Amino acid sequence: MIRVSIVGATGYTGVELVRLLATHPEVELAAVTSRGERGKPVADIFPSLRGVIDLDYSDPEDAALADSDVVFFATPNGTAMHQAPALLEAGAKVIDLSADYRLRDPAQWEHWYGQQHASPGYLDEAVYGLPEMNRKLIGQTRLVANPGCYPTVVQLGFMPLLENDLVATDSLIADVKSGVSGAGRKLTPATQFCAAAESFSAYAAAGHRHLPEIKHGLSAMTGDTVGLVFVPHLLPIIRGIHATLYARLKDPGTDLHELYARRYAREQFVDVLPQGAHPDTASVKGSNSCRIAVFQPQGGATAVVLAVEDNLVKGAAGQAIQNMNILFGLPEATGLTQIALWP
Amino acid sequence: MIRVSIVGATGYTGVELVRLLATHPEVELAAVTSRGERGKPVADIFPSLRGVIDLDYSDPEDAALADSDVVFFATPNGTAMHQAPALLEAGAKVIDLSADYRLRDPAQWEHWYGQQHASPGYLDEAVYGLPEMNRKLIGQTRLVANPGCYPTVVQLGFMPLLENDLVATDSLIADVKSGVSGAGRKLTPATQFCAAAESFSAYAAAGHRHLPEIKHGLSAMTGDTVGLVFVPHLLPIIRGIHATLYARLKDPGTDLHELYARRYAREQFVDVLPQGAHPDTASVKGSNSCRIAVFQPQGGATAVVLAVEDNLVKGAAGQAIQNMNILFGLPEATGLTQIALWP
Amino acid sequence: MIRVSIVGATGYTGVELVRLLATHPEVELAAVTSRGERGKPVADIFPSLRGVIDLDYSDPEDAALADSDVVFFATPNGTAMHQAPALLEAGAKVIDLSADYRLRDPAQWEHWYGQQHASPGYLDEAVYGLPEMNRKLIGQTRLVANPGCYPTVVQLGFMPLLENDLVATDSLIADVKSGVSGAGRKLTPATQFCAAAESFSAYAAAGHRHLPEIKHGLSAMTGDTVGLVFVPHLLPIIRGIHATLYARLKDPGTDLHELYARRYAREQFVDVLPQGAHPDTASVKGSNSCRIAVFQPQGGATAVVLAVEDNLVKGAAGQAIQNMNILFGLPEATGLTQIALWP
Amino acid sequence: MIRVSIVGATGYTGVELVRLLATHPEVELAAVTSRGERGKPVADIFPSLRGVIDLDYSDPEDAALADSDVVFFATPNGTAMHQAPALLEAGAKVIDLSADYRLRDPAQWEHWYGQQHASPGYLDEAVYGLPEMNRKLIGQTRLVANPGCYPTVVQLGFMPLLENDLVATDSLIADVKSGVSGAGRKLTPATQFCAAAESFSAYAAAGHRHLPEIKHGLSAMTGDTVGLVFVPHLLPIIRGIHATLYARLKDPGTDLHELYARRYAREQFVDVLPQGAHPDTASVKGSNSCRIAVFQPQGGATAVVLAVEDNLVKGAAGQAIQNMNILFGLPEATGLTQIALWP
Repeated sequence: MIRVSIVGATGYTGVELVRLLATHPEVELAAVTSRGERGKPVADIFPSLRGVIDLDYSDPEDAALADSDVVFFATPNGTAMHQAPALLEAGAKVIDLSADYRLRDPAQWEHWYGQQHASPGYLDEAVYGLPEMNRKLIGQTRLVANPGCYPTVVQLGFMPLLENDLVATDSLIADVKSGVSGAGRKLTPATQFCAAAESFSAYAAAGHRHLPEIKHGLSAMTGDTVGLVFVPHLLPIIRGIHATLYARLKDPGTDLHELYARRYAREQFVDVLPQGAHPDTASVKGSNSCRIAVFQPQGGATAVVLAVEDNLVKGAAGQAIQNMNILFGLPEATGLTQIALWP
Repeated sequence: MIRVSIVGATGYTGVELVRLLATHPEVELAAVTSRGERGKPVADIFPSLRGVIDLDYSDPEDAALADSDVVFFATPNGTAMHQAPALLEAGAKVIDLSADYRLRDPAQWEHWYGQQHASPGYLDEAVYGLPEMNRKLIGQTRLVANPGCYPTVVQLGFMPLLENDLVATDSLIADVKSGVSGAGRKLTPATQFCAAAESFSAYAAAGHRHLPEIKHGLSAMTGDTVGLVFVPHLLPIIRGIHATLYARLKDPGTDLHELYARRYAREQFVDVLPQGAHPDTASVKGSNSCRIAVFQPQGGATAVVLAVEDNLVKGAAGQAIQNMNILFGLPEATGLTQIALWP
Repeated sequence: MIRVSIVGATGYTGVELVRLLATHPEVELAAVTSRGERGKPVADIFPSLRGVIDLDYSDPEDAALADSDVVFFATPNGTAMHQAPALLEAGAKVIDLSADYRLRDPAQWEHWYGQQHASPGYLDEAVYGLPEMNRKLIGQTRLVANPGCYPTVVQLGFMPLLENDLVATDSLIADVKSGVSGAGRKLTPATQFCAAAESFSAYAAAGHRHLPEIKHGLSAMTGDTVGLVFVPHLLPIIRGIHATLYARLKDPGTDLHELYARRYAREQFVDVLPQGAHPDTASVKGSNSCRIAVFQPQGGATAVVLAVEDNLVKGAAGQAIQNMNILFGLPEATGLTQIALWP
Repeated sequence: MIRVSIVGATGYTGVELVRLLATHPEVELAAVTSRGERGKPVADIFPSLRGVIDLDYSDPEDAALADSDVVFFATPNGTAMHQAPALLEAGAKVIDLSADYRLRDPAQWEHWYGQQHASPGYLDEAVYGLPEMNRKLIGQTRLVANPGCYPTVVQLGFMPLLENDLVATDSLIADVKSGVSGAGRKLTPATQFCAAAESFSAYAAAGHRHLPEIKHGLSAMTGDTVGLVFVPHLLPIIRGIHATLYARLKDPGTDLHELYARRYAREQFVDVLPQGAHPDTASVKGSNSCRIAVFQPQGGATAVVLAVEDNLVKGAAGQAIQNMNILFGLPEATGLTQIALWP
């Protein structure tokens, strides 16, 4: 059994880690921490977990995190970069679901996240945990930077086109729509029911923190820098991200559906739909799947990729566990066979 | 392995049976039938099941249903009563999720369901599948009448009060609110998004088909007929039922919370909340739990019971599998450990 | 033209007052105040008001409120009781949408609202602004205590039964469901999208602040104290309240529909539906209507009343303007002819 | 007073016409027709209109439509093309909210709408009713082809860029999201609550009927054919369309915000937001506004336009009334001053 701890298990991502790990056959949940709720039973705060988990929240200082085989950070940006190094040096592995180790360049990180990086020396060592791209490296590291929800779905959507040099890389467009849980559990006016329900809008059209992370990943696929316009939107649903991606094809004659089907044929968590089908976010609710379709409207020069995921699963906690499975040599789908809840 | 078939697996309840049975460790899914979709892969109609199930829909006439150990009917009312007898005589067990075998009196059934009963001779044999009430009988039958979604939560909510003769039985009130999936997958104006979203209303206030079923069950708890006013409402959510129950206490001095906690202490799928907590439907979404709280406002003469369930799980498919587990001598929670999806 | 000011116009109720008053033909909006947003254009905070209103928020201290003919308080409980007396003495009329002047007994107010009342001397003078009950008194006062959203719909629902002494008054039940805007614009965990959407629960089942206000009103109809169980619930919709009311009939032979139709025949804002119809909250969204239906299930001893309103209109801002119209001798529907927005 | 009739007033668009026309000061509603509901009071089918409208539905054959000054067609595609010619010849004006007269080329119409055009001789005469583009022509015609909901918002969004030749016209992208009411009131699986709520997907990515209409309008702005990729999506809201538009700038140095502000300065129903603000659909719910913002992410070569409208108002019934006002020489905003319902 793998001894697992979760730091910051009061956010949506942390609770989702608990939900998924509670039935993972190779995991023993050692500690879940929260400064604000320490001493309280987890199931008192989250009634959906009544009867599932018996643990109380412990203070991150008191928890014997270093005794864990792996520690998940489900904390706000700027926390893991302080605490991860000591854990790593004590022998634990770390999977960070925040943005702390996702960029290589500390200056760039500091620009987008507005604070000085506390452990820049670990940035080079961190492996970006997108298994469909970095499976081998993930298996060899001790520090995984788990991708953001937007970056996961955008990278999986563009990957076959970019790896095969099929599109102009200076004018990629990602029009992406996220459910409200993507904004986290912090109280904000925009995430109040009366503001978010029965409405829809873009936000951060001028520039969103996930932009450099996505561009970094896309560039790695092409070997060159890419030009990307990324516009995130807030959807009035709880879970789910839908990316609509646009790219100019170099050769309109390529069979795009076949390309995608082949690229992902052996990926358990990427599902290419039959030609002509459109993925909907409900079909992945609660599951670790990313479902993808590709179109070429009117046979023209633009490829349109549609990709969906559950932002809390494949976009966060599920992918983190997928990475853990790789880290510990388990079959990649262990504990991740939850079927989407439909309707 | 238990060979299982599902008749009518294109409605919400049938799809939910597939979702739950697909990961049941003791079940082999032999056939799923649908006249309208025969020949098509189940996963083509329900993309949430892609990668989960490989079966095509078969015609109910072609499927070798009688070779199954158990056949679930997830059909509209009036179908199982025609097909179940032959299957039973051929040796299969039958769990009927429709209303066909829920009432003892064929005349009453015909009054509420507007058609003649096709196999009234089986009504006496059928066992009403509410495990918390009829566990022993369920284990001995071959024909289970799986309770309706409303009746399940209302009966579990009133049970401790009625079994202990604590309330006036002539003036019970059940104000119950159901998510839209409770209305089934048939196209109707009331279940269109633009009619159901951002709205709320009661329906069938003059009399709903579940009334005789509920009264029958409540009467069985008291040994006498009961007076019940039952008002169903349509909630703008997909899954979930919330019952708010009112009863006049004979003795306001009883410790109601203790009563409920004791009654359900050994029930795996009924969860009595800590005193003062209010259950919400989200805490049972996708799980087989019924969560209950009881209040006595201002210490007065009225007991208020709050009870929630997922209408498709504990209110339908989950309870049907719970009954199957009892029928086949399996631990009751086998294959039913799904954790509620929150948020 | 009536010079109108609004104190606290950043909450849902205040913004709704602006929406309704902006097209009122006899009103000139003099000032809207907000400590937090002073100096900012109202339309910058609420884009729905762009092009509608040109005012900036002013500080309540700076605004010449006493120059207004009438001042609406759309403030949290505990504010109007401090500021209203000076305005009244300066000659302005006051319509308070908070709870400050709704109860006669300061001790009772202090019990439920947890603070000392700052101007108890004005409680006797305040008129409870339910026009269907107190129209004459409203026309003669200078201080209107505008009813709460729950109390409005519950009182209108029970009124014909109680005024005519038709039901047992010791066991009234009000099972009431409110949209999320009823909880106000303050940030709370329960009103976050991810907590409120796709869920439903009761709250404050042990006792809600509106209980004494409702009981006070119902008692006034009967001339005696009443016994009431009031259970509020949170609905996943923005606007709308649905009350389901239960009362034991003294004589099951009364024609309830006729009773309701007659009682409200001359009320412009209470609409009794055709027999057998069920009101839905969508049918009053944005309008000042309360729609009502009454049932007597199975011809039994229990009357079931269904009543809906838009909590921000008839339950708050609309009713406040209805009261203003009465105060100033205008036709009661002036400026209140908005048609419900459906779908 | 203008005598107005509505053909097909049982769909969302027809009901919305009734809502808006009922308070229009210069309109008398002469007849509303429906084959299916003839003889029934309109307010019986749509309770939101109780107390607002006294008319019964009449059969389109019986109604003296030709006596009307103007007839609105709120019918499915393929109806107006049969009935409009006789009305026009009898002297009535016609405003068609369906697609029948929106394209000039009958062959193109027949390709996209799958039937032969019944009155192609009127296509040349019909004026495309986008007032911001064709105000003068609208004032001179007797037959208005009211734009589709998608085409309205996409054309208003691109207009300043195209009119001024600022972008490459071969690679325009319109990623557009519509609320469910845009799909009409017909019963379909995709518009059921359980399918549409808590989900999001694209549809018709290979080609949507509004594509030729939009391209036609955009081409008229540039004087040349344009290349457009148009991907519609279904939003889980009732009302509202959000367009996110992408275009390659010829000169990244243009002040886009100033361009848009200037272009729409005198348009009453197009609102350019302050720089940096993002429009949300809730801010136009129930109103005739289109709100627009324009961004140039990272100062790059791509312009991003965000535009919202209520698909039933500015995208249908409101714009139709705006056109009627122009036709009859009334101030364009007559009867169209409804303020958005927020929250």
